[in-house]
Amino acid sequence: MEKVREIVREGRRVGKEDPRRVVHAFKVGLALALVSSFYYCQPLYDNFGVNAMWAVMTVVVVFEFSVGATLGKGLNRAVATLVAGGLGIGAHHLASLSGPTVEPILLAIFVFVQAALSTFVRFFPRVKARYDYGVLIFILTFALISVSGFREDEILDLAHKRLSTVIMGGVSCVLISIFVCPVWAGQDLHSLLASNFDTLAHFLQEFGDEYFEATEDGDIKEVEKRRRNLERYKSVLNSKSNEEALANFAKWEPRHGQFRFRHPWKQYIAVGALLRQCACRIDALNSNINSDMQIPMDIKKKLEEPLRRMSSESGKSMKEVSISLKKMTKSSSFDIHVVNSQSACKTLSTLLKSGILKDVEPLQMISLMTTVSLFIDIVNLTEKISESVHELASAAKFKNKTKPSRSDSGRIGHDMPNKSHDDHHRHRVVTILCDVDTSNNVDQSHGEISVDSCHHVAIKIDDDDSIHEKHEDGDIHVHTSRVSCEHTNASDLLVSGVKKN
Amino acid sequence: MEKVREIVREGRRVGKEDPRRVVHAFKVGLALALVSSFYYCQPLYDNFGVNAMWAVMTVVVVFEFSVGATLGKGLNRAVATLVAGGLGIGAHHLASLSGPTVEPILLAIFVFVQAALSTFVRFFPRVKARYDYGVLIFILTFALISVSGFREDEILDLAHKRLSTVIMGGVSCVLISIFVCPVWAGQDLHSLLASNFDTLAHFLQEFGDEYFEATEDGDIKEVEKRRRNLERYKSVLNSKSNEEALANFAKWEPRHGQFRFRHPWKQYIAVGALLRQCACRIDALNSNINSDMQIPMDIKKKLEEPLRRMSSESGKSMKEVSISLKKMTKSSSFDIHVVNSQSACKTLSTLLKSGILKDVEPLQMISLMTTVSLFIDIVNLTEKISESVHELASAAKFKNKTKPSRSDSGRIGHDMPNKSHDDHHRHRVVTILCDVDTSNNVDQSHGEISVDSCHHVAIKIDDDDSIHEKHEDGDIHVHTSRVSCEHTNASDLLVSGVKKN
Repeated sequence: MEKVREIVREGRRVGKEDPRRVVHAFKVGLALALVSSFYYCQPLYDNFGVNAMWAVMTVVVVFEFSVGATLGKGLNRAVATLVAGGLGIGAHHLASLSGPTVEPILLAIFVFVQAALSTFVRFFPRVKARYDYGVLIFILTFALISVSGFREDEILDLAHKRLSTVIMGGVSCVLISIFVCPVWAGQDLHSLLASNFDTLAHFLQEFGDEYFEATEDGDIKEVEKRRRNLERYKSVLNSKSNEEALANFAKWEPRHGQFRFRHPWKQYIAVGALLRQCACRIDALNSNINSDMQIPMDIKKKLEEPLRRMSSESGKSMKEVSISLKKMTKSSSFDIHVVNSQSACKTLSTLLKSGILKDVEPLQMISLMTTVSLFIDIVNLTEKISESVHELASAAKFKNKTKPSRSDSGRIGHDMPNKSHDDHHRHRVVTILCDVDTSNNVDQSHGEISVDSCHHVAIKIDDDDSIHEKHEDGDIHVHTSRVSCEHTNASDLLVSGVKKN
Repeated sequence: MEKVREIVREGRRVGKEDPRRVVHAFKVGLALALVSSFYYCQPLYDNFGVNAMWAVMTVVVVFEFSVGATLGKGLNRAVATLVAGGLGIGAHHLASLSGPTVEPILLAIFVFVQAALSTFVRFFPRVKARYDYGVLIFILTFALISVSGFREDEILDLAHKRLSTVIMGGVSCVLISIFVCPVWAGQDLHSLLASNFDTLAHFLQEFGDEYFEATEDGDIKEVEKRRRNLERYKSVLNSKSNEEALANFAKWEPRHGQFRFRHPWKQYIAVGALLRQCACRIDALNSNINSDMQIPMDIKKKLEEPLRRMSSESGKSMKEVSISLKKMTKSSSFDIHVVNSQSACKTLSTLLKSGILKDVEPLQMISLMTTVSLFIDIVNLTEKISESVHELASAAKFKNKTKPSRSDSGRIGHDMPNKSHDDHHRHRVVTILCDVDTSNNVDQSHGEISVDSCHHVAIKIDDDDSIHEKHEDGDIHVHTSRVSCEHTNASDLLVSGVKKN
């Protein structure tokens, strides 16, 4: 009894986790009940006889959770049945020419060679990824057709019937999976990526509070809950296989919603990989928080301002990316946060140079420097990620939501529809950059920065491509150096002289 | 033509990567040719008729690469066919009681409910991991039996024939996969783990040369090759899904070689996870090497001795683990290297305290400290890993190769069979520990250390369990603090006073 209750509880949990699972179960039941009615329907049964069973079998085996997976399996099965049926008939014909003694031997050899070859081909990585099921069905159908032909003379008729029933089963699956509450693998992959961005953004935005605010021992439950919430990023670490499977399925899907047939699914995998790298750093950071508790707060506080900003700004940029992904619009709003986090990175390096940590003990220094280095890494990765998202946006032809003014001086002030939004950002940057000594910023930051007479800074973010050009021409160090973001490099040069030249 | 040549090349590569794939292909061909001979064998055909096809189908679908996967699928299929057959007959009987009009409707409802429920159950994580295929076959068989029964009255006979042919097919698969060049998933998992240890050991042992020796620009090819060799650790990062699949298959396998039926496969996953954590740190370290090139060699050289030792000693401990895994013997030889790496860790902290890095620039400091912190991490992880391997060794009942002398003073000098080997290690430790000031070591290190009158140190490594007890009683800090190994902690307390109390 306890066991049953446990199963029911588990079932409720599974259903709550993703209610589409319940719908999927109903869809499979529907498809199967539909197809098995072939047996009851006298004219259909007269036509196909026992072969109607292949329709049932096809439905059970082909109907998968997402449209892409169902389509992929269905197409694999249909094509494999067709080709193997043809070859099977050929093999049977060839064998039957050789007389009744040799025929079974010849057929056995055919089956052996075909099965061995096909089984080997299944190990090819490219075949395994997309056509594994097709090859399996190929082996199966070839063996069944060529061998059963040994008993039946109406082999052509058999192959024809089998193919039609398989196609009937497959088509029912595909139609039901597309038209009854469809689950698109592409949409899932897209949402997964956006939610991964959200998760990392949440960690980065909360990090400052977690790290710099002393935890009161009072509400342990609250702390536990916050901690669990913070550690959601761990799901990102393990998302690789899931993403790859979804991308594989998505490739089979027709146009749906805003996703074209040849949507750049590969780019999703690339962005996802960068995101996982970032999650890996966050993991290290998280285990560092726990040990850092032993560093006195007053030492940590020395670096609070820039660290908090690096963290929250890269968090904001990820949040913006997630929003722009969800809306499927091209957006440059996250670039500003990337620039901000880089400028905070520079402040940090200036602070470190000022010898603020001179009296810190070496062992505390190690822990503190690890945090710093991980954050510099995260800022650098955030930049790479935002580039990669720009590439995704243009490859996927996302709509242009924001078309900010061009940076050519002649065009400044063009009246764009989203001017106010743009201005808002510009203003935000002004505030932030003025904390730092702006004089060094002129050509290191990502947009165009010009210092006007009253020491205000105006940032204009170009449309994505021009940013990239700028970036590619401008500085090469960002990608190669791990423990320094470009601002740090720049200030390094400025402060410590001409070490490089 | 070019295409064909490419396919042949790919085939050769796939075959070379794992020659057992070729053998597997032959085995599948053999099994299929064998089973399809059921059709030719007149008495068998008379018995089973068209149902012989189920044997062919079973072979194609069930025969997997490893024994475990084949057994798992075969058992799933057999049991599911049996249960679903029984239920299908029951459903058919129930429906036939209700009269010819209601019967098809009732059957359709049965099929619908059964398919929907079973499909939903497939989403349960525990079912998905081990019984997914069984549930699929359950749906299939139930639908086929209950529905086809609508036409045929000899439904019991049908169910019986289907079950026997499925079992015949399954048994052929299992027998061939066990007795013809068997591929044991368990053995594979075991080897994979050992080779992962090897890979990480290689990186750690080579790290010193890579980091502290200036690369000559001369032989770029040589450097490239070494680098590629060094980056083999990346395969460890992605081994998770592979390990889990192998462990799932291994659970089905009977006793083979030194693996019992209930071998602790779970513990392999646990060790593998720790190893991946370590690989994650190594990844960070590796990307740090590349950027560290900009740190002047003379600064790096200041930390060379302890860093080199930490790296090579943890590398050696992993190498020893790999050897003891390959031999499947209980061994404590790697504990000594863990202790050594921890002592090097202590030397490093003493060195840092001495203010050796006072004149290093903050940015170089960040990079250097990151390396240091990552290494301290790796040393701590190495300890955890060695503990986890000890657990594995006792859970898996590995043979006792070494039974070193007990640490009770009364027993010192017991003449153990492997005394010379033990002495050799003891000697090695003596040399190393004498570099450090041994006076602090007395109760922090893992074995028992006693300083005798002539300042020689004798280390005795107990048999695994007693080490663990010692550890659990002794110090709790090792596991909680991330950026400090226990020696570091200890010296911290000794040098910087009573900060903690």
